[in-house]
Amino acid sequence: MSHVQKTSPMARRKPGRPIGGSVATDIRQRIIDAAIGCFAREGYGKASNKIIAAEAGVTAPSLYHYFESKGALYRAALAYAIGTLVETYRTACAELPDASSIAQLCLGIEKMITLTKHQPGLMNFAGSAAGEIARHEDLDWLDTEDARAFSDFFRELLLRAKQRGELGHGINIDAAAQMLIACISGLAAMHDNPATTKDFAALLRAFELMLKGELMRT
Amino acid sequence: MSHVQKTSPMARRKPGRPIGGSVATDIRQRIIDAAIGCFAREGYGKASNKIIAAEAGVTAPSLYHYFESKGALYRAALAYAIGTLVETYRTACAELPDASSIAQLCLGIEKMITLTKHQPGLMNFAGSAAGEIARHEDLDWLDTEDARAFSDFFRELLLRAKQRGELGHGINIDAAAQMLIACISGLAAMHDNPATTKDFAALLRAFELMLKGELMRT
Repeated sequence: MSHVQKTSPMARRKPGRPIGGSVATDIRQRIIDAAIGCFAREGYGKASNKIIAAEAGVTAPSLYHYFESKGALYRAALAYAIGTLVETYRTACAELPDASSIAQLCLGIEKMITLTKHQPGLMNFAGSAAGEIARHEDLDWLDTEDARAFSDFFRELLLRAKQRGELGHGINIDAAAQMLIACISGLAAMHDNPATTKDFAALLRAFELMLKGELMRT
Repeated sequence: MSHVQKTSPMARRKPGRPIGGSVATDIRQRIIDAAIGCFAREGYGKASNKIIAAEAGVTAPSLYHYFESKGALYRAALAYAIGTLVETYRTACAELPDASSIAQLCLGIEKMITLTKHQPGLMNFAGSAAGEIARHEDLDWLDTEDARAFSDFFRELLLRAKQRGELGHGINIDAAAQMLIACISGLAAMHDNPATTKDFAALLRAFELMLKGELMRT
């Protein structure tokens, strides 16, 4: 977990953000961590800034000092979650620079399994995001850098596979990238609480075998 | 579409249900169709029986004659949606009795693409169900016949693959069945409106190629 927080994409990608000193950064991160847990558990509609503030150990006015609305907090939490997940996949690719795209992706999924053990709400929160955004008018954040981070990663991975002659015949890169995101979101949404972490690992490993074409013979 | 309505699993699987004559059955089905569209578009929290009644062309008291609460209507709509989807997959298997489990599943997915053109809200509604049920206390319907219909189908498909020597080495049937459901749910949730039906077909075809192990070479 310390690894993830140190490489927080929010901190790196928005260096100009006026977040003050490290105490403010810590409080902001504590609120985001509590928000991820609360949104994952309750959904956007039922979650409240009051509950999130209590779980983060801050007062409601203090929370509003950092996030002006529940929508703003949701977007910040999602940007953090997506940044963390994409960063984890990119780290996997960097660790195996000469491996096939499939092998890199499978290492990324193994890192997801580890991440889930440390931050159980993250997967469900990220996996539920598309549905939440579609349903709540105050949650429109498409076309931003954060919203594209996942599809950019998968498109790059597939493009690299194409350049190396690994991509299957007739694969449309955009459709395949969206398909992988949909599957991974569906899998992520299955992780509903820490008790299911072991089952979740089995699920992701079955997905790795499918990626490798080892699920069933045609 | 007529095929799906004629083989409505609700009508077949619950023959003892006191649904009255065919007029009552038609009204009930009209309410369910409107509910699927409304729940898909608004989510469970924001959808209301009032809007659903208006879209079904019935009065609110008439709707309450068939469904005592929004939760009861959601469960009936979900039972219908899951029944329709499972029935479609089972029809595909019956059409290709000697084909591999992968080929049967791919034909089922092709039938999903056709279904989506006729009933656009169905996929999104079904794909969002796990998240909705997890978040709303009045939507607890696990351990019923309907909730198991999907996992029963995928377990049978994988078991059949195992019996025929098609199943990959080291595949846990329960985990693989849940994995396939998660992926298909994630894909279904991506279909948010009729305008995306063409993209949705491309997504599902990329998934078929992945199932066959033709996405990328390892």
